[in-house]
Amino acid sequence: MTTPDAPPRELTVALLGGGTVGSQVARLLRESADDLAARAGAALRLTGVGVRDAAKPREGIAPELLTDDLEGLASSGADIVVEVMGGIEPARSLILAAMAAGSSVVTANKALLAEDGGTLHAAAEKHGVDLYYEASVAGAIPLLRPLRESLAGDKVRRVLGIVNGTTNFILTKMDEDGADYADVLAEAQALGYAEADPTADVEGYDAAAKAAILAGLAFHTRVRGDDVHREGITSVSAQDVAAARDMGFVIKLLAVAELVDDEKGVVVRVHPAMVPRTHPLAGVRGAFNAVFVEAESAGDMMFYGRGAGGAPTASAVLGDIVAVARHRLAGSRGPGESTYAHLDVLPIGDATTRYYVNLDVADRPGVLAAVAQAFADNGVSIQNVRQDGHGDDARLVVRTHTAADSALAATIERLRSNDAVRNVVGVMRVEGEDER
Amino acid sequence: MTTPDAPPRELTVALLGGGTVGSQVARLLRESADDLAARAGAALRLTGVGVRDAAKPREGIAPELLTDDLEGLASSGADIVVEVMGGIEPARSLILAAMAAGSSVVTANKALLAEDGGTLHAAAEKHGVDLYYEASVAGAIPLLRPLRESLAGDKVRRVLGIVNGTTNFILTKMDEDGADYADVLAEAQALGYAEADPTADVEGYDAAAKAAILAGLAFHTRVRGDDVHREGITSVSAQDVAAARDMGFVIKLLAVAELVDDEKGVVVRVHPAMVPRTHPLAGVRGAFNAVFVEAESAGDMMFYGRGAGGAPTASAVLGDIVAVARHRLAGSRGPGESTYAHLDVLPIGDATTRYYVNLDVADRPGVLAAVAQAFADNGVSIQNVRQDGHGDDARLVVRTHTAADSALAATIERLRSNDAVRNVVGVMRVEGEDER
Repeated sequence: MTTPDAPPRELTVALLGGGTVGSQVARLLRESADDLAARAGAALRLTGVGVRDAAKPREGIAPELLTDDLEGLASSGADIVVEVMGGIEPARSLILAAMAAGSSVVTANKALLAEDGGTLHAAAEKHGVDLYYEASVAGAIPLLRPLRESLAGDKVRRVLGIVNGTTNFILTKMDEDGADYADVLAEAQALGYAEADPTADVEGYDAAAKAAILAGLAFHTRVRGDDVHREGITSVSAQDVAAARDMGFVIKLLAVAELVDDEKGVVVRVHPAMVPRTHPLAGVRGAFNAVFVEAESAGDMMFYGRGAGGAPTASAVLGDIVAVARHRLAGSRGPGESTYAHLDVLPIGDATTRYYVNLDVADRPGVLAAVAQAFADNGVSIQNVRQDGHGDDARLVVRTHTAADSALAATIERLRSNDAVRNVVGVMRVEGEDER
Repeated sequence: MTTPDAPPRELTVALLGGGTVGSQVARLLRESADDLAARAGAALRLTGVGVRDAAKPREGIAPELLTDDLEGLASSGADIVVEVMGGIEPARSLILAAMAAGSSVVTANKALLAEDGGTLHAAAEKHGVDLYYEASVAGAIPLLRPLRESLAGDKVRRVLGIVNGTTNFILTKMDEDGADYADVLAEAQALGYAEADPTADVEGYDAAAKAAILAGLAFHTRVRGDDVHREGITSVSAQDVAAARDMGFVIKLLAVAELVDDEKGVVVRVHPAMVPRTHPLAGVRGAFNAVFVEAESAGDMMFYGRGAGGAPTASAVLGDIVAVARHRLAGSRGPGESTYAHLDVLPIGDATTRYYVNLDVADRPGVLAAVAQAFADNGVSIQNVRQDGHGDDARLVVRTHTAADSALAATIERLRSNDAVRNVVGVMRVEGEDER
């Protein structure tokens, strides 16, 4: 007979979503049951898998576990409710219902966290449950736990991440093969690395959601997806890639979150950027993800791994399940949302970076002087200028020192109105030049 | 007036050790007090700094905090006792005294954990306190928390790490400059990257202690420093480095822990190894550290950053202090030692890797056949053979497929006794060839 004070020997897990990630979570709960029980301190029993169509068989999931009663499963009072459906609704309502029923929640839902993380965190606080979401950013790479726990005694200055595998696959191929964006996108779609509608990836929406989550954790400030300045990779040309290569750089879609304005604010942005080939992020190829963190005491760190896929994402979900399970057995909770810093989230104009500017110019005396004056008048200091070609092919390639984004934008405006400048061929931010 | 149930507003911290790391910990506790209080949920008050000579002033530490009564400070009942003295004794006795007085302990002491971690973990369990030690391996890189928490739902197959900055600095210099070991060691000593007595680093003792800690966490099995097969870098020659370079490899001192024998055992080893230049570990240069983890579901991951230094190590210590502080406020504990798997720690002969073998051979018919036969008779499959030079300079460079270490050792023994082989010039393990 069990005494009343003995710890429960079993915890229940309800799974919302039976797709790529959900089926892997179900499989691992079954196949790794003994290891998980030893590590969590109790057996983890899957009580149900909520799906839209419960009649459709799912590989590796016992048919009797399937249910289309998502609301019923979410509010069944399971110890842990795992949400791997994605999207805003019904995921949000289901998570809130689960918390109201006293369940701790593990989710991989980056879009929801970036749109309305505050509501979820407040509900977790109110009901005294855990909200864990390691899988929402950079798949299997342990990243959120290091940021919110390991670095809790340090001050993060900047986070630079490659957090979208689809765009990194495309940019890597463009760099390796010299191919055009459209051709590589088609190849990525054929290989299943890009969706039929690739907008969320190639326009940077997915990366922006992840950037918001990372920024919130790094700077103890609530950041929403809408706060993130966002530019995609659709306008990156084979010519840009070749120009980067010539200068010893590679183009990456970066998610950047950093302290600005004497540490009173943060800017969070997603855009293509040139990165020196000697920077650790430059070697992150194909569908891999990596996040580079600059902290005051710890210095530079990088976390690298698989950013997507059913099994890697499920690994991150399972890690959270074990952590949440331990807390329930101990009657405790993990750290809640930390937004005490309340920094201002500032517009992109307040960001400061270096720039690459490629100008198609008239080949005549005085052009360089006019161009240099446009930079100087806006307070943008030039690092170096290279003239390429002559006559109709004359190009000026300018690289700047660090300048405010607003100053660079004003410079470009001024250059466009100068008749010696036939065309502004390329403008791209340059990141990571000082790290090594 | 505070009600009895209100959480305490202050936690006390006693610091054992006032050297490079200790003074940085004291500085950060003071300079980051507000951030730490917000993140931990209570102010952290430093009650004393235990040192050998309390009369000697320490930069950044108020003189009235210094004490040479280490035993008294350790057993003062502080909420958190931080041990950054290093060495086995008196560190072990002081940590045990602290736990007996109900204090949670944060330590950076890899040597002690590798020698007698079991005793410390058992004491933490007995007294219901935390034992945290993120700073003991790879300095500032969040590594232990990911291994023991984020990957708790996965199965780690292998850990490959560059965990000693001194040797990586030396090997990087040898690779970049073609210099000899002795010259680079002297340079490293002049720059302060190597100790006057470099034995602990260059003979692999430091890396072996860290390998034992990593292996224990990765495989849920107790591993001691003495269980680790250890070879240092003192016999790595400029010639070896050049040969590696010719083949597209770089030599690194690796700490390797992996499942073997159908997952019933682990082998843990530290030795120089050739790593392909395309592997993420190959780009880890100078004093940086990195640990590459291969897990069943998550796939390949890498954690990269500064492995040593006062401020980076202090960052890791502070992260642990915040975690332990949160637990004390919540009346909970973090995960304890996990050794449920009880795998056998097997001898080096049971490891399987690829090999590079460089032979000085007689230039006459039949030599290749004799050499090939020596490999074949020991069941070692040859991947490729290259003949370099002629006459007195004739060399055979053999690279093998994966083979048991014991089989390779027997092969080398056989080659040494063959009169066609004038000298076995170089033998080195090859790691990381299949990862990308």
